[in-house]
Amino acid sequence: REAVRPLRISAANANGAKDKPFNLLDTFERRHIGPRTADLPEMLKVAGASTMEELIAKTVPAGIRLKRELDLEEARSESELLAHFKSVMGQNKVYRSYIGMGYYNTIVPNVILRNILENPGWYTQYTPYQAEISQGRLESLLNYQTMVSDLTGMDFANASLLDEGTAAAEAAALAFSTGNRKKKKFYVDANTHPQTLALIKTRCEPFEMEVVVKNSFEEMNFEGDDVCGVLVSYPNSNGEIHDYKDLSDRAHKKGALVIVATDLLALTVLKPPSEFGADIALGSAQRLGVPLGYGGPHAAFFAVNNKLVRKMPGRIVGVSRDSHGNPAFRLTLQTREQHIRREKATSNICTAQALLANMAAMYTVYHGAQGLKKIATRVHTLTAVLAEGLKRMGHTVEGNGVFFDTIRVRPTSGNFAIGQRCDEKNINLRVFEDQAIGVSLDETVTEKDLADLFYIFNLKNDPSITPQAILKELEEAGKTSVIGEFARKGEILTHPIFNMHHSETEMLRYMKHLENKDISLCHSMIPLGSCTMKLNATTEMIPVTWNEVANIHPFAPLNQTRGYQVMFNELERDLCEITGYDAVSLQPNSGAQGEYAGLRAIKAYLDDNGQGHRNVCLIPFSAHGTNPASAQMCGMDIVPVNTDDHGNVDFEHLKQLTEKHSKKLACLMVTYPSTYGVFEEQIMDICKLIHEHGGQVYMDGANMNAQVGLCRPGDFGADVSHLNLHKTFCIPHGGGGPGMGPIGVKSHLAPYLPSHPVVPISGPKNYGTISAAPWGSAAILPISWAYIKMMGGAGLRRATEAAILNANYMAARLRDHYPILYTGANGFVAHEFILDPRDLTEKTGVQAVDIAKRLQDYGFHSPTMSWPVANTLMVEPTESESKAELDRFVDALISIRQEIREIEEGKADRKDNVLKNAPHTAQHLLTEKWEHQYSREKAAYPLPYLRRGKFWPSTGRIDDVFGDRNLVCACPPMSDYQN
Amino acid sequence: REAVRPLRISAANANGAKDKPFNLLDTFERRHIGPRTADLPEMLKVAGASTMEELIAKTVPAGIRLKRELDLEEARSESELLAHFKSVMGQNKVYRSYIGMGYYNTIVPNVILRNILENPGWYTQYTPYQAEISQGRLESLLNYQTMVSDLTGMDFANASLLDEGTAAAEAAALAFSTGNRKKKKFYVDANTHPQTLALIKTRCEPFEMEVVVKNSFEEMNFEGDDVCGVLVSYPNSNGEIHDYKDLSDRAHKKGALVIVATDLLALTVLKPPSEFGADIALGSAQRLGVPLGYGGPHAAFFAVNNKLVRKMPGRIVGVSRDSHGNPAFRLTLQTREQHIRREKATSNICTAQALLANMAAMYTVYHGAQGLKKIATRVHTLTAVLAEGLKRMGHTVEGNGVFFDTIRVRPTSGNFAIGQRCDEKNINLRVFEDQAIGVSLDETVTEKDLADLFYIFNLKNDPSITPQAILKELEEAGKTSVIGEFARKGEILTHPIFNMHHSETEMLRYMKHLENKDISLCHSMIPLGSCTMKLNATTEMIPVTWNEVANIHPFAPLNQTRGYQVMFNELERDLCEITGYDAVSLQPNSGAQGEYAGLRAIKAYLDDNGQGHRNVCLIPFSAHGTNPASAQMCGMDIVPVNTDDHGNVDFEHLKQLTEKHSKKLACLMVTYPSTYGVFEEQIMDICKLIHEHGGQVYMDGANMNAQVGLCRPGDFGADVSHLNLHKTFCIPHGGGGPGMGPIGVKSHLAPYLPSHPVVPISGPKNYGTISAAPWGSAAILPISWAYIKMMGGAGLRRATEAAILNANYMAARLRDHYPILYTGANGFVAHEFILDPRDLTEKTGVQAVDIAKRLQDYGFHSPTMSWPVANTLMVEPTESESKAELDRFVDALISIRQEIREIEEGKADRKDNVLKNAPHTAQHLLTEKWEHQYSREKAAYPLPYLRRGKFWPSTGRIDDVFGDRNLVCACPPMSDYQN
Repeated sequence: REAVRPLRISAANANGAKDKPFNLLDTFERRHIGPRTADLPEMLKVAGASTMEELIAKTVPAGIRLKRELDLEEARSESELLAHFKSVMGQNKVYRSYIGMGYYNTIVPNVILRNILENPGWYTQYTPYQAEISQGRLESLLNYQTMVSDLTGMDFANASLLDEGTAAAEAAALAFSTGNRKKKKFYVDANTHPQTLALIKTRCEPFEMEVVVKNSFEEMNFEGDDVCGVLVSYPNSNGEIHDYKDLSDRAHKKGALVIVATDLLALTVLKPPSEFGADIALGSAQRLGVPLGYGGPHAAFFAVNNKLVRKMPGRIVGVSRDSHGNPAFRLTLQTREQHIRREKATSNICTAQALLANMAAMYTVYHGAQGLKKIATRVHTLTAVLAEGLKRMGHTVEGNGVFFDTIRVRPTSGNFAIGQRCDEKNINLRVFEDQAIGVSLDETVTEKDLADLFYIFNLKNDPSITPQAILKELEEAGKTSVIGEFARKGEILTHPIFNMHHSETEMLRYMKHLENKDISLCHSMIPLGSCTMKLNATTEMIPVTWNEVANIHPFAPLNQTRGYQVMFNELERDLCEITGYDAVSLQPNSGAQGEYAGLRAIKAYLDDNGQGHRNVCLIPFSAHGTNPASAQMCGMDIVPVNTDDHGNVDFEHLKQLTEKHSKKLACLMVTYPSTYGVFEEQIMDICKLIHEHGGQVYMDGANMNAQVGLCRPGDFGADVSHLNLHKTFCIPHGGGGPGMGPIGVKSHLAPYLPSHPVVPISGPKNYGTISAAPWGSAAILPISWAYIKMMGGAGLRRATEAAILNANYMAARLRDHYPILYTGANGFVAHEFILDPRDLTEKTGVQAVDIAKRLQDYGFHSPTMSWPVANTLMVEPTESESKAELDRFVDALISIRQEIREIEEGKADRKDNVLKNAPHTAQHLLTEKWEHQYSREKAAYPLPYLRRGKFWPSTGRIDDVFGDRNLVCACPPMSDYQN
Repeated sequence: REAVRPLRISAANANGAKDKPFNLLDTFERRHIGPRTADLPEMLKVAGASTMEELIAKTVPAGIRLKRELDLEEARSESELLAHFKSVMGQNKVYRSYIGMGYYNTIVPNVILRNILENPGWYTQYTPYQAEISQGRLESLLNYQTMVSDLTGMDFANASLLDEGTAAAEAAALAFSTGNRKKKKFYVDANTHPQTLALIKTRCEPFEMEVVVKNSFEEMNFEGDDVCGVLVSYPNSNGEIHDYKDLSDRAHKKGALVIVATDLLALTVLKPPSEFGADIALGSAQRLGVPLGYGGPHAAFFAVNNKLVRKMPGRIVGVSRDSHGNPAFRLTLQTREQHIRREKATSNICTAQALLANMAAMYTVYHGAQGLKKIATRVHTLTAVLAEGLKRMGHTVEGNGVFFDTIRVRPTSGNFAIGQRCDEKNINLRVFEDQAIGVSLDETVTEKDLADLFYIFNLKNDPSITPQAILKELEEAGKTSVIGEFARKGEILTHPIFNMHHSETEMLRYMKHLENKDISLCHSMIPLGSCTMKLNATTEMIPVTWNEVANIHPFAPLNQTRGYQVMFNELERDLCEITGYDAVSLQPNSGAQGEYAGLRAIKAYLDDNGQGHRNVCLIPFSAHGTNPASAQMCGMDIVPVNTDDHGNVDFEHLKQLTEKHSKKLACLMVTYPSTYGVFEEQIMDICKLIHEHGGQVYMDGANMNAQVGLCRPGDFGADVSHLNLHKTFCIPHGGGGPGMGPIGVKSHLAPYLPSHPVVPISGPKNYGTISAAPWGSAAILPISWAYIKMMGGAGLRRATEAAILNANYMAARLRDHYPILYTGANGFVAHEFILDPRDLTEKTGVQAVDIAKRLQDYGFHSPTMSWPVANTLMVEPTESESKAELDRFVDALISIRQEIREIEEGKADRKDNVLKNAPHTAQHLLTEKWEHQYSREKAAYPLPYLRRGKFWPSTGRIDDVFGDRNLVCACPPMSDYQN
């Protein structure tokens, strides 16, 4: 009975300590947690427990319960937290960065900053799977794709990837797959950004590909017929611009793909990669108005030619039509599924960086073709002036003399003095291994900045060498550009969208117009099972756009980022305490990246311990589709494990499999609580069994929101987990990214956490690099850090209890109306549950998708549809929803059940009814002739609350058939891996 | 021909200088101005001019044209501006303030900060005169009134006033008016905040009231039957709490009003003023979650008993019903009109502080009764601990020992040492004239803050005197409260709205729910004539919530506010250059306050020059209703001047009047361009004529947006103007405030600018104080400052030209559909114009109000209705609207004209038509039975653009009769002053 704790949650005085007169009263827990203390008795009663302790005791297996509160700092109030964090981040030094390497300073238009990045209407949106209530961001993402296609000259672009390094690794894998996994050689130009190269190497290794780094692209030899692809950069990491036409011809002759890492701003004035035959163009869209953020989050872009479009990883927005024949946007998922579902997955990509892609798209809309070209031209002119100036000072500007914004300088002498002057001026330059210096300019560079750069290199203080004097000379000589034959011909960005919203008023209205088409957490609960759409609190979000957080280059020297380091250390420590792990890597910038990093750690550990032959990965059927994809990518053999009628792992089957594969068992991947929303009783036995057979346990952290403060994976047998910070730890979903997927490991795996080729963070035995930036999307980590600091140990535990209570309260209220598919040993669910309408489908033809679409008419986003079980709905309320909101949603579902009953009873038509025709748009309802067998009012206002304020879907139903396959993150179900 | 200038506006390279490679490209002008360079030829052609210069030459009288560009700093780009301003405001020192005096630190809930104060969806709204598309803020303002009524115990509260001082002056005037202007004596307790006292004195003087300051309220004697009212404070300025029951009884016996300045936070735990008989309760709502902002903007509150409700100044929200019988909110204006329209106006109040009242209301919704009581109790406990601590240290806590959050301390010795320790700790205390020290605590005070205060006063460094020790003692003795008999009994804030949205998610949704009911500049143009609803740019708004701008007490020592002083000086200088005046006072915090300040300056000047007998104020019939009200309040006699058929001042009539009143002529008040939207040709002659007769010219600055950069009032004869910074200079309207109304004066009036009793800013010959804070709403002045700095001289001129072009383009497109009421000598309008549908009313029964309401169905806010001419619409597009938006609005009006034609032609019914039934709500359109003579689609989607996204009005038409009187700012028309 050590686990007995007070029952009150979320009242003003939930945390007794806060009642002391000296403590500030702007406590956070009661703002984060939805239900009030006064609601608890009734909610518990409905759920079937007399106390919270009883509910938890009957839900979470006793054997794994944590017998104490989490040992975290006392909760800070909101104002205290911000004041404290301001002083922590004050330890960062914001130097002027000319480091480049794929990360550039940019002027974020303030109207975009405030109305997208700082606006919950945009950042609390979910991925636009429910297209009818997501037309706003789908339009914006389509703008993004259009912009990328236009600038790269490629046929198709996706709606963003995680970072340039990941995009390059995806491209390499795509080349490998295109070569039918037979051509194992992959060329990379040595003058590639080192982090990009590191990611390619890391990802290619398990495929047993041979990554060959060539000092010059001209040396690349395709004679052996063994090359699947080649990656070059345009401009390259030294800033040089080369013509890859010949390379491209040679590669294509032998069926190798030509992959070009490039820069969108440069492409506004440079010939597009398509012109010299690129098959894939990729890179980062960061410099189009997305802050540096010490590494992220940013959007990468990925564009391909016609032939490769069906293999392109990531999300793609397409234009379709709705049920009334009107054009409508939607995600076209089939291409993505195709490349994952096969046995030989080469990608586990699930998420995008939607919020940042939207920012980049809006930046393009705001500036238009002319604006972007002007920016590019100015940057280039400044660079030409700088290069010329450096030459006059006696330094050597290396390379072929054709550059855009970056030069590589070999000082004749005086590196030390140059370094001193950099310090004096608070400036960071890139220093190559051979002591050459890299300088990259960007749109933020002012006349004074340029003067400072001249000062730094003008060691003889020659007063005649000034930016003004050089500019004048270059202008007179007509030499302000060195691009020459690479100059782009023809118009860019001719689509009207890039030529109409250039005043701030127009821009603001466009963004608001799109925002108002989309349901976000600003409107109503988004009860997506497995996605944990909880509160993204304003106080958590505020530091993200602070100068000292947002404007630091990821490769700035560590002594300039002490504030960040403090935060990282504290977050790692707190996540260890929460999970029971011993070490954490913050690098993986998505859940899928986390899975991959965790499995690679397991592999590296096994390899190091003479167990390199172990490569069987057991995965229950109930697993998320990323699990097998990640395992495939790590070179493992996947063996599915059955689940029993209660949704638990079939222990007998597991036993058989472990015995069968005992010698080769590498690991088990298991989600806990299960993806069916159940705390499996025998989880400790399962872990023990795996360990007995020499395997490791990978526990998917997607459902950590049911565990925090109640039990810890590290305590009951797991060796490694990723943590979806965008689920349990409050990073907003941003309409489809950013996410973060750090991993926690037990101490034996700690040496095998990811490293970085530029910033020295490697463990002693690292196997490679997972994300382009050392701490992934560092700028959003304060969100999770702040959440933990403001909740404290008891607060986090109470949040978990509330999440479990909310789910059980809803399940109990809905039980008599829809079957609940799985429950735990005592009949309780964890933090989510599955509604099963399959019986109704038989009787009435109504499917889960119809209920999902009808919910839109009620102002709600659908629960997770057809995952993990086809034609069902998985509901996860989270702790942040109030009882009133839970009731409103339950009432909507009960009302829909009544509408279904009308079909059952023959009162409504099987085909022409409010469900099959859902969602109903205002336009459709107002047509002159109303030919349906139900009234307009019944369609629009089935419950009274809708009359107080109704959210109108923008389109009729978009694609029924597609809807059935609309999975969470759209990864394929485990069944695809059977046999 | 010196005025010839380039014609291009608003293109990316509008400002040629910006094309130099070294200049940053994030220039502002093209973002602020709507039309693109490419649009100009067509727009000019439609307007009837071949070049911009020709248009301006034919619109603005040649004689008054400025023959050069404005001499302002070169325009700064957006990022440059913010970087520069950061360093300017970095000169401010943000000390911990315990000064109190009506201004307290407060924790602004971040969810409110981001989603109200920093959200254009709220801050770009206009005053909610068009109630059907303003239900969101009307609901919030009703919450504000409800909260004020509840806490003060009074029967009615208004929807905010400007500041406590203004509210007190309004109360004194109300008492004077209640006493039929016969009882001239007004008592004020000496322990009133000095700025409140100063405002009362200033305002009472022209009424020839005798303000008698009594050292004790007990000394107030009503025997003489000559006292109209008394003002006391509860708690008073020393922090003491007194029982005013006896005073109240004595006053009431003689018909004097009892006015109580009070504190809403204190009232959550103190007996309300109603219990001791207050007739009026007033004060500031600032500490309910509105930043200090170095003085404002904040909302004042004003509440009265039943008897006074029809005399209450300011806007009042009431509950009414719409055309479908549903409850709906609206402004109830009649009470306000009543007290202004009479010959003896005692108020010129036009605006409110809606945005700040909404913040305070939301703060109350967020905290609820229990939350506020806890905050108040904590503040009080900390104060009790401090008071006890100071006594132990040997200091005297003066007064009756009953206080809430403020104590007045008489140090036994050591004032100097206390001062030194304050400096050491960066702390400001209040220092009374007699060297007593005031300390006011608030919700932000932490344990460490209290320890610092103990340190400051604990000159003997007695280690036994600690907050912790004192608290323990007081708790043990049950003495943590000293309120005693003043403790409030009974529940507060029992209305459900204060008891349901306490989680952040609920709060966010409530604010977004309300926001989405209201049309703002985020949706479409708001073409309100005379209101200049131009862009409120994000970059202008960003500094408003910076720490070094938002968190400074208005009475902080000047050496801590050097950044602010730099900004004030630059803004004053720039406004002088723009207007041609010699000096500016930034104090008046609304246009009406500016008018009053300007007229008082004229009066003071005349008095000083032996012309005190001059008191006739000439005002054209076309004038805004505030003009005569302000003149009345300054003790002037108002003589109306006729206007001719073209809307110009009838010069002959003016001549007659000046001759008739020559000896007594004080001034002319004239708006330029006229309120009819016309540049009067003879303005110079008019000014000359007035001066010849010894009068001064007050030029209302409401229409400055047509003048900036083209002509200057100070050049063509005006002596003083107020400038509505919330019109011409980009401060957002905030849904009905804040505004700012600084005045510019010629040098002879400069000695007569307003002073301040606490902060030494007086000119040599000041006559008094206009606003409670020395620089009015200082925190929003950066908006105007930034606008000027980012536009530069040429940019501002081009903005004015664009505003005139936009108006003339629209007028030309509309001319064939609706008569344009007035135009200038060459047939052009200024920056606004009047559409005259009166002919149509005759033929069809359609009135201006019907067009206004029908525009809501088209997604637009109505132009200004029935002002300055009844049953007309005045359109002002501003320069910020693009050609596309102008066209969309014009198309809507033309489409409506067609709908009217259908009535003319008998195709539509005179009573049952889309105009008379407008606006149409979705609910109404979806009713089962449709019994109107037009289709649902015709009602909802008259033009195709509406199908791309429609804004739905929340209610049917609310009050037709009232609508006819719905004037700009609801001040009365000049006709009320005839005779």
